[in-house]
Amino acid sequence: MTASDTSSSPALVTAAILVIGDEILSGRTKDKNIGYIAEYLTNIGIELREVRIVPDVQEEIVSALNALRSRQTYVFTTGGIGPTHDDITADSVAAAFGVSIDHDPRAIAMLSERFPADQLNEARLRMARIPAGANLIANSVSKAPGFNIGNVYVMAGVPSIMQAMLDALAPTLKTGVKILSDTVRAGLREGDIGTALAEVAKAHPDVSIGSYPFFSDEGPDTNVVVRSRDAQKLAEAMAAVKTMLAAEQARLGV
Amino acid sequence: MTASDTSSSPALVTAAILVIGDEILSGRTKDKNIGYIAEYLTNIGIELREVRIVPDVQEEIVSALNALRSRQTYVFTTGGIGPTHDDITADSVAAAFGVSIDHDPRAIAMLSERFPADQLNEARLRMARIPAGANLIANSVSKAPGFNIGNVYVMAGVPSIMQAMLDALAPTLKTGVKILSDTVRAGLREGDIGTALAEVAKAHPDVSIGSYPFFSDEGPDTNVVVRSRDAQKLAEAMAAVKTMLAAEQARLGV
Repeated sequence: MTASDTSSSPALVTAAILVIGDEILSGRTKDKNIGYIAEYLTNIGIELREVRIVPDVQEEIVSALNALRSRQTYVFTTGGIGPTHDDITADSVAAAFGVSIDHDPRAIAMLSERFPADQLNEARLRMARIPAGANLIANSVSKAPGFNIGNVYVMAGVPSIMQAMLDALAPTLKTGVKILSDTVRAGLREGDIGTALAEVAKAHPDVSIGSYPFFSDEGPDTNVVVRSRDAQKLAEAMAAVKTMLAAEQARLGV
Repeated sequence: MTASDTSSSPALVTAAILVIGDEILSGRTKDKNIGYIAEYLTNIGIELREVRIVPDVQEEIVSALNALRSRQTYVFTTGGIGPTHDDITADSVAAAFGVSIDHDPRAIAMLSERFPADQLNEARLRMARIPAGANLIANSVSKAPGFNIGNVYVMAGVPSIMQAMLDALAPTLKTGVKILSDTVRAGLREGDIGTALAEVAKAHPDVSIGSYPFFSDEGPDTNVVVRSRDAQKLAEAMAAVKTMLAAEQARLGV
């Protein structure tokens, strides 16, 4: 794994998330990991580009993983690394990379910290099945490790465990230039400012300008968010947005 | 659109969700629609097979939409149909289907119910841009409609509006045989039952058996969920799970 070095590599670092699990697709379990990882990556300068959710079906996992890992700097998976028959993520990742998979002595040692020998049964030993060549990701919550192979990071689906694994692996990631962001509340409805906002966006092509309507106690309102890797360009665009908003408020008598 | 007719078409009806929006990928907005739609579809006998989240980039939207609509019975999209420059879903859907897009008189009439003529500006009229040949989906919350073209249903990203649109379009969907589900709390850790549960699963190949660990006040525990379209097979498998759990509890002295 490579140490983080933003000074010499200001290039874009991108990522995908692959969520694995029938329980998410059936709606029985509501995913809490996508939003958490998305925010985490943004904060360390990695741009999340796409997310997929697939069922516990090996060919679906392999197909999605191979598509994502060829396109993005990193892929983070959640789910399917527990002790039961429907936990097929490790085998599917091994298949995607075309490598063998077996009980890993390092992973067995980690599990042994938690489970005495008489509890380290066949089911729990499933959690020590790791693709050949992978690095382990420590699990400070329940010991059973995640793993990293190539540009793919395989984590648990239980949010507390996933979060511990993400903390453990994050220092090993290459990070890009952090995206800066500034938000202003318009005090106007989205449709009131859309035309003028499009002109501001056109005049500032190097920044990303988004508008997000919401309902407050005083009625419909809009947050305008300006994002850029360049602080100066961000400030210029935000100043233009605020000038536009003041003009629209005056025009509409708000 | 076809009226629901489960009696003569017990075939599998499948779906995908395509979430469109930079704000979800940046983590700024936490998606609340996937879990809602997933549960909604399960309840009406439609099997959600895959989900993708893509940015506000036309080629990404077109590519994902064409992949999903060729594989599943239905595709439901959320996000990107508002009044501002970053709302490009309608144009992207038109491009994916290779049809033209223009201001739709029916959509303008709907918007006119809410906005007087002097407020129906260029930005708001963007929300009346509908691909040729599409049916409109009523929006009881804020009037600006969604639309349906082919097997694709385009909805708003704001959860309250999305939910109103889903209620409006659901009666037009073909539905399959509803998946039945039964859950039992094991009173045991997932790793305690994994080996025996795999044997039950192997003996009942026509049902889907999932196990979901959780932490309660009494410590780690597991929910076992059995799912099937066949009530008899579901009952048989659940009986086998319960017999297995009683045996494991006795063996472990719990």
